[in-house]
Amino acid sequence: MDFGSFFNPQSVAVVGSMSPGKLGSILVNLIVEGGYQGRLYAINPKAEGFGAVPGFSSLSDIDPLPELAVIVSPAATVAAVLEECGRAGVHAAVIITSGFSEVGNHQAEKELLETARKYGIRFVGPNCAGLANAPYQFFPTLEMKPPPGKVALVSQSGALGGVVLGWAAQKGLGISKFVSFGNGADLTVMDFLYYLSEDDESEVIALYIESVSDGRALMRALRVCSRKKPVVVIKSGRTAAGTRATASHTGSMAGSDAVYEAAIRASGAVRVRSVEELLDLCEGFISAPPVRGKRLAIVTNSGGPGVLAADRAEELGLLVDEPSASLQQEMRVYLPPNCSLKNPVDLTVEGTEEGFRRSLLSMLKEYDAGLAINVSTSYLDTTGLARGVADAAIQSGKPIFASFVPQQLVAAGSALMKDAGVVNYPSGERAVNVIAAMQHYLSSRSDAENVAADETVKRLSSAAKPLPGGNPMLEPEAMDWLRLNGIPTPPLRLVSNASEVVKACEELGFPVVMKVVSPDILHKSDVGGVIVNIQDAESARQAFERIRQSASGKDFRGAVIYPMVRGAVEVLIGLSCDPQFGPVVAFGLGGIYTEVFRDVVLRIAPICLDEARRMIHEIRSIKLLTGTRGQPPRDVESLARVLARFSELPFEYPQIAEADLNPVFLLPEGLLVGDVRVIRKSV
Amino acid sequence: MDFGSFFNPQSVAVVGSMSPGKLGSILVNLIVEGGYQGRLYAINPKAEGFGAVPGFSSLSDIDPLPELAVIVSPAATVAAVLEECGRAGVHAAVIITSGFSEVGNHQAEKELLETARKYGIRFVGPNCAGLANAPYQFFPTLEMKPPPGKVALVSQSGALGGVVLGWAAQKGLGISKFVSFGNGADLTVMDFLYYLSEDDESEVIALYIESVSDGRALMRALRVCSRKKPVVVIKSGRTAAGTRATASHTGSMAGSDAVYEAAIRASGAVRVRSVEELLDLCEGFISAPPVRGKRLAIVTNSGGPGVLAADRAEELGLLVDEPSASLQQEMRVYLPPNCSLKNPVDLTVEGTEEGFRRSLLSMLKEYDAGLAINVSTSYLDTTGLARGVADAAIQSGKPIFASFVPQQLVAAGSALMKDAGVVNYPSGERAVNVIAAMQHYLSSRSDAENVAADETVKRLSSAAKPLPGGNPMLEPEAMDWLRLNGIPTPPLRLVSNASEVVKACEELGFPVVMKVVSPDILHKSDVGGVIVNIQDAESARQAFERIRQSASGKDFRGAVIYPMVRGAVEVLIGLSCDPQFGPVVAFGLGGIYTEVFRDVVLRIAPICLDEARRMIHEIRSIKLLTGTRGQPPRDVESLARVLARFSELPFEYPQIAEADLNPVFLLPEGLLVGDVRVIRKSV
Repeated sequence: MDFGSFFNPQSVAVVGSMSPGKLGSILVNLIVEGGYQGRLYAINPKAEGFGAVPGFSSLSDIDPLPELAVIVSPAATVAAVLEECGRAGVHAAVIITSGFSEVGNHQAEKELLETARKYGIRFVGPNCAGLANAPYQFFPTLEMKPPPGKVALVSQSGALGGVVLGWAAQKGLGISKFVSFGNGADLTVMDFLYYLSEDDESEVIALYIESVSDGRALMRALRVCSRKKPVVVIKSGRTAAGTRATASHTGSMAGSDAVYEAAIRASGAVRVRSVEELLDLCEGFISAPPVRGKRLAIVTNSGGPGVLAADRAEELGLLVDEPSASLQQEMRVYLPPNCSLKNPVDLTVEGTEEGFRRSLLSMLKEYDAGLAINVSTSYLDTTGLARGVADAAIQSGKPIFASFVPQQLVAAGSALMKDAGVVNYPSGERAVNVIAAMQHYLSSRSDAENVAADETVKRLSSAAKPLPGGNPMLEPEAMDWLRLNGIPTPPLRLVSNASEVVKACEELGFPVVMKVVSPDILHKSDVGGVIVNIQDAESARQAFERIRQSASGKDFRGAVIYPMVRGAVEVLIGLSCDPQFGPVVAFGLGGIYTEVFRDVVLRIAPICLDEARRMIHEIRSIKLLTGTRGQPPRDVESLARVLARFSELPFEYPQIAEADLNPVFLLPEGLLVGDVRVIRKSV
Repeated sequence: MDFGSFFNPQSVAVVGSMSPGKLGSILVNLIVEGGYQGRLYAINPKAEGFGAVPGFSSLSDIDPLPELAVIVSPAATVAAVLEECGRAGVHAAVIITSGFSEVGNHQAEKELLETARKYGIRFVGPNCAGLANAPYQFFPTLEMKPPPGKVALVSQSGALGGVVLGWAAQKGLGISKFVSFGNGADLTVMDFLYYLSEDDESEVIALYIESVSDGRALMRALRVCSRKKPVVVIKSGRTAAGTRATASHTGSMAGSDAVYEAAIRASGAVRVRSVEELLDLCEGFISAPPVRGKRLAIVTNSGGPGVLAADRAEELGLLVDEPSASLQQEMRVYLPPNCSLKNPVDLTVEGTEEGFRRSLLSMLKEYDAGLAINVSTSYLDTTGLARGVADAAIQSGKPIFASFVPQQLVAAGSALMKDAGVVNYPSGERAVNVIAAMQHYLSSRSDAENVAADETVKRLSSAAKPLPGGNPMLEPEAMDWLRLNGIPTPPLRLVSNASEVVKACEELGFPVVMKVVSPDILHKSDVGGVIVNIQDAESARQAFERIRQSASGKDFRGAVIYPMVRGAVEVLIGLSCDPQFGPVVAFGLGGIYTEVFRDVVLRIAPICLDEARRMIHEIRSIKLLTGTRGQPPRDVESLARVLARFSELPFEYPQIAEADLNPVFLLPEGLLVGDVRVIRKSV
């Protein structure tokens, strides 16, 4: 669709009261003050205008028809206004008015959508803060007027959008386009992401979301955008209190935060935790060249702040290692002998313009990004030092960031550096946060290319089949089904009476494990239905008797027997179904450690082999798998293959609601599922 | 000692060149411009003055003698200047000049100290940025001049001190006293902490340290201060790069960061990670009443920012739970029906002054602190809303914090709230950081009362005795020593030849564990010197033979035999000796999990029983100890007793350099040491 009518309309009608103090008049005034150059009209029953803006009682009275209607009239009138738009032939509307699904009034919102569909109208809102196109001087919004620039801002919450615009204005960070989509009844975040990904005036997209109904569609949109330009995301509702408030705020269920986290990462977007971080990062992205690696050179005229920045950098996974001997030798020639050359390079309080310029240029031969720190005092010439940093940025072509403080003394230097693409942050730590995030964007964007695409989902779904077995699926049925689908399971015997027990055990070889099979028993250990380490025939007979008793009064289908597996690391592989994102695959430490350490990582399913490898290496206890203290390394490669294959199953078997393989016995060679539980979707 | 001569001198001599551009003239100019009301003199060989400030060639020419000398003359001259101070009878000096131990010139620094001792001079520096007493308008420093206020700032780094002063000036945060102690050759951080703890003009102490030589003295000073007023600490050098830079910056070895973290916490001080956090927190402490509990009420006129703040609060351990039904009912009476009352209480964009006032007052009947969030737009009257918040703070007497944004629109409201003790932060998250830290200060201060005091150390040390056994201590010797000191060890037999093996095993009862005993073998498993689960006499004989072979060619002293312990959780208890803080006690998950999860917590030894209990509950895997998924709870109380007792041993046995009990078998009742390693200090 064409967004021109929203962001660059030739003519606009504001629908609402023009009486003083009413939103209609406030809005018209803001649009006029913003410098809008197109034709502007006011629509209300009294046909009241506002200043030079003419008033009409009906849209159809205006000739030629306005391209966009911005509606602030009371909620009860909005449906009729939209109907009038449709009849008159206006096909774009922004509905700022609130009082729809966000307060439980779903029916009224549905009617708006039906009217719009009937006439081919597209609209933003309701319950939104409007939009803005700063370079075009068009501000149909009640929020702060931002200066023009290169950051596009899309916000589910109007107020949060306003916060960002206010801060951005204060920092002098320019905005290209702004839109708050509110309830998103028609146009929603995905539409704006696709539009902005193609918008040449927007170099970075800042996004605030609370929840979306179609998580996969969000991922597709984020992935498309992130390939073209950075998308920086604040997603709220991370913890219990947050989720509660979000639910009552937007009237839609928020998915688990861990799932959103996985989805945003897999899409190559960058998630931040605060508005401050959002703006810091947008400023970095639009100003500095890309950060292509993890090696950070810090040059400072002050030890303490240099150390704090280096600490933070290493916490975030950047490398602040020492320069090579030859590089140190090179710097030693032109730097005074009391300078430390270890990284941070400490020029001391006597650091000069030449010192900053040359040491940054030397360091950036070996490092991927530079950070220049300067603590100024009133008797030092900061502007010269800033010039040294700016020159180094221009000559090296590499990303350099600065923290020149205190702000009162460095205004001129700061402006000079800004012109050279060097952003000045109020602390070294904040600069380091930006550098780490910019580095992560480039590296995760290339990962995002690897994740299994929608074609895989389509291919798998086209071969969808029903889940075999009963309801619930019994353990032997589930093991058969896993084996059929390429997941390695141990040999097993299902025995239903005592006479078969010894033969089955001998075929498998002692020692064995025996478990109860009954559709009535979900937690087998809790009823004494699992007996391990059975060493001989007599123990086996006794074990079967105890297993039978454990199911007393229940639908007893027999016992399943496996050979004992020893010396394995127990891991967990799981599937669940998120209301917004659909199938999600989990991997983590298994057995009793699953609950104790919660060392589990998530991905949106399906995942490819590369992604499975990355996922496995993300758990904190990875050393247990790769070998430690006399423990042999485990077959992580086979595990990755199984994990990737398992992540495909919910598409081939769409009836799966949840599936847990826990424990999976991971061996030095190969792996075996130790227990399985599959839960069907309730129909 | 009396710090009056430093902070409130009647007369001051600046020693250094008064030529234009030289530090001496810059400093005199700054002192004059700062508004100093006492008598000021310049000292230099040419007897040059500066403006109205008279010049002398020698201190002794001045009558009456100046109370304080501030020295900025070249490094080579400082010893002679100090000698002159001594002879003339000046007993206080600030040595700003650098070029001493920080560049390896330890001898020159030692000479300064000797001269000072000879004449009874006390001095600050060398290599420092001077000091300031803002209410007294005395600024003998090259750093920014701060506005007068209630925050005392002590900084090891002059530059970092300057950063803080610059930011504070910009934020309008007032400073009472400032001192940068540089190399701290004479007066050091402890001296200033004691002084400021008694200084009525200072309500909060902000401290930046890089390293200290006597960690225990720092802890004592922090503890004394923290009982009287909050001490907020930035300690740099946390990670590898940071530590490296710190070492070269201050010329002193930095202790491990985890040890500093434990020491600062045990002292009741509050550690922060950045200058921004430091200032945010100081502002909270000097403005708001104490935060006495974890329950936080959030009242907002905007959903999104409320959610972000609630998320952050729960991440930091604050409780943002729902108000009681009766409280909701109370608010329902006066709030419009579309307001969410769940906490965050969302007044929506139509929130009023009355709405903020009444809902905060209602909520604060049940909650410990309040956070008011408001996102303003140009057509809203923010000042009224701010008045509602300010009134609630005054009427409730409870701590309320605000985040009213954007800053451009809320200046008047912000000032109004400030007068009522409500600090306005640029984001809800930053306000929440402050609330959590203030709450933690009060609760950890009471913990700090519980930690074992210096008297315990004195008592234990007075009974110091040598470590028994050989060097290294053999396992049976170490087990005897532990048992003697009240640490529970398993029964054991030491056998030196095959004929004794079976009898020993039978006395202990099969199954048993057998381990090699040899002073040459540190890592017994690595040589095959540990055999577990020995079931019978024949296996025992074979095991002894294999053990003997594992020590082939080494000094074989026999094998130690223990009964097998089953069903235990393996934990670790350790001791080590930090260069700055002395004995440190560690507790964590044992066995192979020690390295995999690094789930280990530290304390400065010794610790009391309460502290041992807190320490145990700090490990991430605490659920393994308290019972989970069919695992019984373990005897955590006995563990705490053993841990507290073990933490005393390095004082009774000062030869201990390191001691590891790993694993310790923690049982449903009691515990037993599974293995022990004690390393003596090298003499």
